[in-house]
Amino acid sequence: MRLLLLHGPNLNLFGRREPGVYGTVTFAEINRRIGALADELGVELIVLQSNHEGALIDAFHAHIDSVDGALINAGGLTHTSIALHDCIKAMPFPVVEVHMSNIHAREPFRHHSVIAPACLGAVAGFGWRSYTAALRLLVEHLNERNPMV
Amino acid sequence: MRLLLLHGPNLNLFGRREPGVYGTVTFAEINRRIGALADELGVELIVLQSNHEGALIDAFHAHIDSVDGALINAGGLTHTSIALHDCIKAMPFPVVEVHMSNIHAREPFRHHSVIAPACLGAVAGFGWRSYTAALRLLVEHLNERNPMV
Amino acid sequence: MRLLLLHGPNLNLFGRREPGVYGTVTFAEINRRIGALADELGVELIVLQSNHEGALIDAFHAHIDSVDGALINAGGLTHTSIALHDCIKAMPFPVVEVHMSNIHAREPFRHHSVIAPACLGAVAGFGWRSYTAALRLLVEHLNERNPMV
Amino acid sequence: MRLLLLHGPNLNLFGRREPGVYGTVTFAEINRRIGALADELGVELIVLQSNHEGALIDAFHAHIDSVDGALINAGGLTHTSIALHDCIKAMPFPVVEVHMSNIHAREPFRHHSVIAPACLGAVAGFGWRSYTAALRLLVEHLNERNPMV
Amino acid sequence: MRLLLLHGPNLNLFGRREPGVYGTVTFAEINRRIGALADELGVELIVLQSNHEGALIDAFHAHIDSVDGALINAGGLTHTSIALHDCIKAMPFPVVEVHMSNIHAREPFRHHSVIAPACLGAVAGFGWRSYTAALRLLVEHLNERNPMV
Amino acid sequence: MRLLLLHGPNLNLFGRREPGVYGTVTFAEINRRIGALADELGVELIVLQSNHEGALIDAFHAHIDSVDGALINAGGLTHTSIALHDCIKAMPFPVVEVHMSNIHAREPFRHHSVIAPACLGAVAGFGWRSYTAALRLLVEHLNERNPMV
Amino acid sequence: MRLLLLHGPNLNLFGRREPGVYGTVTFAEINRRIGALADELGVELIVLQSNHEGALIDAFHAHIDSVDGALINAGGLTHTSIALHDCIKAMPFPVVEVHMSNIHAREPFRHHSVIAPACLGAVAGFGWRSYTAALRLLVEHLNERNPMV
Amino acid sequence: MRLLLLHGPNLNLFGRREPGVYGTVTFAEINRRIGALADELGVELIVLQSNHEGALIDAFHAHIDSVDGALINAGGLTHTSIALHDCIKAMPFPVVEVHMSNIHAREPFRHHSVIAPACLGAVAGFGWRSYTAALRLLVEHLNERNPMV
Amino acid sequence: MRLLLLHGPNLNLFGRREPGVYGTVTFAEINRRIGALADELGVELIVLQSNHEGALIDAFHAHIDSVDGALINAGGLTHTSIALHDCIKAMPFPVVEVHMSNIHAREPFRHHSVIAPACLGAVAGFGWRSYTAALRLLVEHLNERNPMV
Amino acid sequence: MRLLLLHGPNLNLFGRREPGVYGTVTFAEINRRIGALADELGVELIVLQSNHEGALIDAFHAHIDSVDGALINAGGLTHTSIALHDCIKAMPFPVVEVHMSNIHAREPFRHHSVIAPACLGAVAGFGWRSYTAALRLLVEHLNERNPMV
Amino acid sequence: MRLLLLHGPNLNLFGRREPGVYGTVTFAEINRRIGALADELGVELIVLQSNHEGALIDAFHAHIDSVDGALINAGGLTHTSIALHDCIKAMPFPVVEVHMSNIHAREPFRHHSVIAPACLGAVAGFGWRSYTAALRLLVEHLNERNPMV
Amino acid sequence: MRLLLLHGPNLNLFGRREPGVYGTVTFAEINRRIGALADELGVELIVLQSNHEGALIDAFHAHIDSVDGALINAGGLTHTSIALHDCIKAMPFPVVEVHMSNIHAREPFRHHSVIAPACLGAVAGFGWRSYTAALRLLVEHLNERNPMV
Repeated sequence: MRLLLLHGPNLNLFGRREPGVYGTVTFAEINRRIGALADELGVELIVLQSNHEGALIDAFHAHIDSVDGALINAGGLTHTSIALHDCIKAMPFPVVEVHMSNIHAREPFRHHSVIAPACLGAVAGFGWRSYTAALRLLVEHLNERNPMV
Repeated sequence: MRLLLLHGPNLNLFGRREPGVYGTVTFAEINRRIGALADELGVELIVLQSNHEGALIDAFHAHIDSVDGALINAGGLTHTSIALHDCIKAMPFPVVEVHMSNIHAREPFRHHSVIAPACLGAVAGFGWRSYTAALRLLVEHLNERNPMV
Repeated sequence: MRLLLLHGPNLNLFGRREPGVYGTVTFAEINRRIGALADELGVELIVLQSNHEGALIDAFHAHIDSVDGALINAGGLTHTSIALHDCIKAMPFPVVEVHMSNIHAREPFRHHSVIAPACLGAVAGFGWRSYTAALRLLVEHLNERNPMV
Repeated sequence: MRLLLLHGPNLNLFGRREPGVYGTVTFAEINRRIGALADELGVELIVLQSNHEGALIDAFHAHIDSVDGALINAGGLTHTSIALHDCIKAMPFPVVEVHMSNIHAREPFRHHSVIAPACLGAVAGFGWRSYTAALRLLVEHLNERNPMV
Repeated sequence: MRLLLLHGPNLNLFGRREPGVYGTVTFAEINRRIGALADELGVELIVLQSNHEGALIDAFHAHIDSVDGALINAGGLTHTSIALHDCIKAMPFPVVEVHMSNIHAREPFRHHSVIAPACLGAVAGFGWRSYTAALRLLVEHLNERNPMV
Repeated sequence: MRLLLLHGPNLNLFGRREPGVYGTVTFAEINRRIGALADELGVELIVLQSNHEGALIDAFHAHIDSVDGALINAGGLTHTSIALHDCIKAMPFPVVEVHMSNIHAREPFRHHSVIAPACLGAVAGFGWRSYTAALRLLVEHLNERNPMV
Repeated sequence: MRLLLLHGPNLNLFGRREPGVYGTVTFAEINRRIGALADELGVELIVLQSNHEGALIDAFHAHIDSVDGALINAGGLTHTSIALHDCIKAMPFPVVEVHMSNIHAREPFRHHSVIAPACLGAVAGFGWRSYTAALRLLVEHLNERNPMV
Repeated sequence: MRLLLLHGPNLNLFGRREPGVYGTVTFAEINRRIGALADELGVELIVLQSNHEGALIDAFHAHIDSVDGALINAGGLTHTSIALHDCIKAMPFPVVEVHMSNIHAREPFRHHSVIAPACLGAVAGFGWRSYTAALRLLVEHLNERNPMV
Repeated sequence: MRLLLLHGPNLNLFGRREPGVYGTVTFAEINRRIGALADELGVELIVLQSNHEGALIDAFHAHIDSVDGALINAGGLTHTSIALHDCIKAMPFPVVEVHMSNIHAREPFRHHSVIAPACLGAVAGFGWRSYTAALRLLVEHLNERNPMV
Repeated sequence: MRLLLLHGPNLNLFGRREPGVYGTVTFAEINRRIGALADELGVELIVLQSNHEGALIDAFHAHIDSVDGALINAGGLTHTSIALHDCIKAMPFPVVEVHMSNIHAREPFRHHSVIAPACLGAVAGFGWRSYTAALRLLVEHLNERNPMV
Repeated sequence: MRLLLLHGPNLNLFGRREPGVYGTVTFAEINRRIGALADELGVELIVLQSNHEGALIDAFHAHIDSVDGALINAGGLTHTSIALHDCIKAMPFPVVEVHMSNIHAREPFRHHSVIAPACLGAVAGFGWRSYTAALRLLVEHLNERNPMV
Repeated sequence: MRLLLLHGPNLNLFGRREPGVYGTVTFAEINRRIGALADELGVELIVLQSNHEGALIDAFHAHIDSVDGALINAGGLTHTSIALHDCIKAMPFPVVEVHMSNIHAREPFRHHSVIAPACLGAVAGFGWRSYTAALRLLVEHLNERNPMV
């Protein structure tokens, strides 16, 4: 199984950015932990971080035929990017929305996710564990849908 | 570790209600699967379903000093109950919001969660797996906070 | 044919509450008149009044397999209860919304019915006659759908 | 007793227009069924259909002193015509709002009835039966108010 | 000088309609009083009442080259008719908005005039005197603009 | 007959302020023209201009028992002053709202008059003639109500 | 004199819940202080706390003919319960709204009280003293209305 | 192929109305140019202009079985007429929305088209060429759907 | 103890203004009653009424170092004056909001208090007794905070 | 004549993305058909697709002095990009907005075009033919403006 | 060069009011610093602080012909005073808006400046330096416009 | 001292774009003038212009540890980019918002700055001088905070 993990704008600053909200675990460490779980689950994980909306969309397009699903933490684009919504909706595989913080408990402009209607589901509020839980959920979902014979 | 699992209005109908949205796994089966995971994780799980907002609040109050955390799928009350929000905020333990369906991808009146600002985090859109993922996340969160010596 | 008639909060006060809006016919008398029509139509009518949202939902659940349809005047819950909406939508039988007063001609907060999208239709503004007309309509609707051979 | 029955824009297309919403009974057949009930109730019914807001208002004015009440399905004008609202409010007799479909369960722009505050009550969602139920209710209302000695 | 006086929907009912709001002076009497003032001011007044938005627009078009100005009480269309707004804006002569009642002191849906941005000015709240004051103002405005040599 | 004429903030600048909107007639000249009409109608006119909301309210209070009516152009306070609204509502005499420009045809924040619900009526859009028309209307209104024997 | 004191959802947690907002005086102590004042004023006080909207309404109904007035702190239901509003409006005695905290100074969703239009008045922001002041005010109001001979 | 071309309110004034917005080509000339293209494409074009919403709806009804498609510039009704929307939706043939000006670049009340959801597509902003482009597009669309053998 | 009592615009008209809303007790009598209670409680009360927002702010500033607290009924400014809000927030002493009528039960524009977030608490709806209750509450609050040794 | 054709985010997926909405013609085929028409019209067409808002703006800037006009289908950016709006407004040549689907007939968030006020006009709803019609319209518009001598 | 510096409500409290927001530099000290810069730039500065909206407007009027420009920190009136907006718009000289704090980063009711559309520009968020920067900018602007020969 | 100066989308067009709004000074000239002031103040200035939201964020990230502050004119992204807001909020140094025009005096969609809550302050409306004033303010702010010993 091959999955795409996309990190949106500013997520590379984890560990430096507002520790009160996002904790002190660094971005590299978060990716290491997710990678470890991926290995454990036998998943090949393609990871990309970009501050460019267009680069995130390019990445989806580039892997449209080569991955089985995707995880995305779109950062601030979560609340504004119709282009990203359209991109996710056009993918033939399921995409899971991930957030470190509980966005629905923060400023009002973070309560609405523009990409949610195009996603399978969401995990939010558990710091880096939001990613590992989402990864596990996506793998279980895909396995159930495509049981190995 | 002892946790509370609260199911709000109509959730007992799972398996009968809108199978296109909620799947065909029955309510009893969902609880059995969550129970199995709880056993595996060494968690004592107290489960309650009620169609009464007041009964859900009563349950929180009754266990205010005897549980370490809670999971709640508040059903339709998710979007309207300030009383439930106030109750969760008053609890001394973390509470996780769970939804079978991806509420942010459904009717607009389901996009806003009134209880979210009082919760630790949320898992939505993965059917019965939303519960098991949430349980696992809550246990990990509590273990990290209160590491056994 | 067996039907459920649910009266929501404060409806038991009919005859005492704001006679200018609701008239002076008592709640008992209204039920008597509906009962008389039910008898005339050969319908077994199960009647319940409750001020508890949860009790109304419980009643629907309790009769999910034993009635052919329902009438509901949800009172003030009409405008707020998503839980009741979800409950009605989950029922396998048609439900008719009834109002003594013309809610769309009163305060703005009464103009919107949260439960309407889950109901077959509505009768409003004719005092106790709203109930008898709704009963007749529901029976005709059911007879047409399930013509006796 | 003499009553006015007004059909607004596009209602003459019943039987042809969106059968999924409005059924397949034709406009002529609907009027025949209402007429039959009127005969049965000893009511003289004046029927008019027009796609012109002005013509509907003209009809009310023309019969201001010669009918005892009216039924109106204002079609799309229901949600926009303040002129029709003002007209109904100026009539000395009660007017009942009728809808084939349950407008409160359709597109948001159909949820608000501009004419409702000027009407006695409403019946919606029961197809052609909305008309016959409304007719019966109006006759009963008028009989009660003006009991024959 | 030749002026157009247009009365919109339901205004012909003056004297019969909601006397508390509009007084008891009849429509014929109002027109007689305006006519008397027009005679006094040496104005030829063309008067039309219609319940049809289209007929009011037709009247404007018909007199586009033959009148020097117009008065309009658009009734309920005041608050909804963009078509009437566009028509007034296209006229080469000034148009004055007239209202018997003080529309800004009534229901919220009467507070906004869609046609106002296309009109020279407005007189509202003085019963039939709103018309005579508006007539006088329009004549003074036109005389000043086109002083006779 | 004795009337109060109140000019609100910035109206003293007429003739200097935005000539495109308000014309070039000076404030002194406007008052002279209104005064001339008052003399002609046998009305004693008390005139006050102030940029202070409080001073306008003080003036109403000071004349509560000594005038028969009032005219007010509240300037920018028209759209914001609930205190002025309350003051006008408390007066035992009728008050007429006056505007030089057609406020409903300008910026959206000028479309709503907070004081309108407390006023008898309004004249807007005719430059200084708005004042003389309003004066005439108020005098006619008062004469009709209190016909001299 | 006999009065009803109703405490809504979560109010029983006073002393435990958000001490920064609600202080540290316990619920039992608050009731003791109110009770002491009631004794002093010669008032028989019936006290009930419930987390169930329906139970609060039931309590009003049960005492409709046996109390002279009521105090209610509806907690989170204050902002959502139209059913409670309708209930209070239907009571033949005055009801006073009480809040420990100044709800208008907190989150926006607490600024609007749905029950206010049905209440005599409100006291908010003085901790437990809000109750004793409200009790005193209600007693004075009732004494004035029904002076003992 | 036979098509209907409907012009709504005020469109007959083209050439006279706001030349800055609509250009100076007359209504007759516009129809002549469209007619020339229709001839070129072998299309029989039925043209109607009316200021009456009802007449436009009547025209659709009259040709429901005799045309293959329609073009409509509904003028000011574009933004308000739900009745027209319902009519277009009920037609068995495709309808194209046309505008001379770019309505989305004008006043906010012109940004929303009520009829758009019932139309196949729209051309706006190219003056009279909007019509010829729309005609060409409709013909191509119909030819593709119903290829001649 | 020394307190400031500020009355905003139009409050001096009590006894004359809308007796149905505000009762018939005069402004002088209300101040006499508050003064009597102040004497009884050993409080020196500085009383000021002004129709000027600025004068109310000036009064706060003038007493910033010489009073222990304040009561304010800001009248119509309650709903609009951010300047007053800022002033109250800048005071080093607690301020209590007072209203004769139940503002939350009146017109929508009276439901929101702009000054509330800067105040300690509020009493509304009890006529002149709102003032005496507020005075008593403020004194108790201050005594508790600064207990005499 | 030289024109720029810009395709925004996800448009390269045409033929793969939601065929029910966008049809099955591939992106390459669409460009081929537009190119064929450009050749036929003697137009040099510069074509660019990008998922990056910035790249689309860069392209406009790069050709600011070298093209005579542009066509743009901005995809999801249509509804959000003020930067693109500002860019188009700054161009010295006309720009035409193109949409495959009828955006005004889809989800509410697609009803508003942020770029429309900066464009000459728009064609929407005709699949790939929207492009060819827009190209033809732009060429005709430019030819008329700059007639060859 | 002669300039006017107006301070609105509560600004005289600087140094006492919310030091966390406004700093601890006193009002006198701020004026001293601005005065020093004015001296350095050869500007005669007329300084006024008032808590009265009317007094600020009076000051503008008094200096309409005697100053070359103005600086204003309107305090809480910034967000509500249309009268002040109208006043500034009527001045023949440029006016600069100044704020100590970054109003767009505070409570939502401070995000909108009613006076901004009438001002040349604004400086906000730099404490007392907002004033000196604004003074320097205004002088440079005036010098450029009216270069000394 | 080292500072970052970021120019957002389309700002490179200064001198070409809407001269009525932005003046005729070119982008190169503006940068030259800012550079001259930077030299004068002993500031090393890193300048970047990009039409890509992502590139602006990348630039902030690249200099997170190497500059002491930043100036940004985000152009159209000012009103939409939550990603940019989050980026600025994550920076350890102060950022100043700059605008050539007075955005609060232009179209409504330019009134709200999404990035303002993350910035120290703002200068708007003074053309290229907005930049130099902002630079001076930032340097003074930094010097004060970090006084050289």
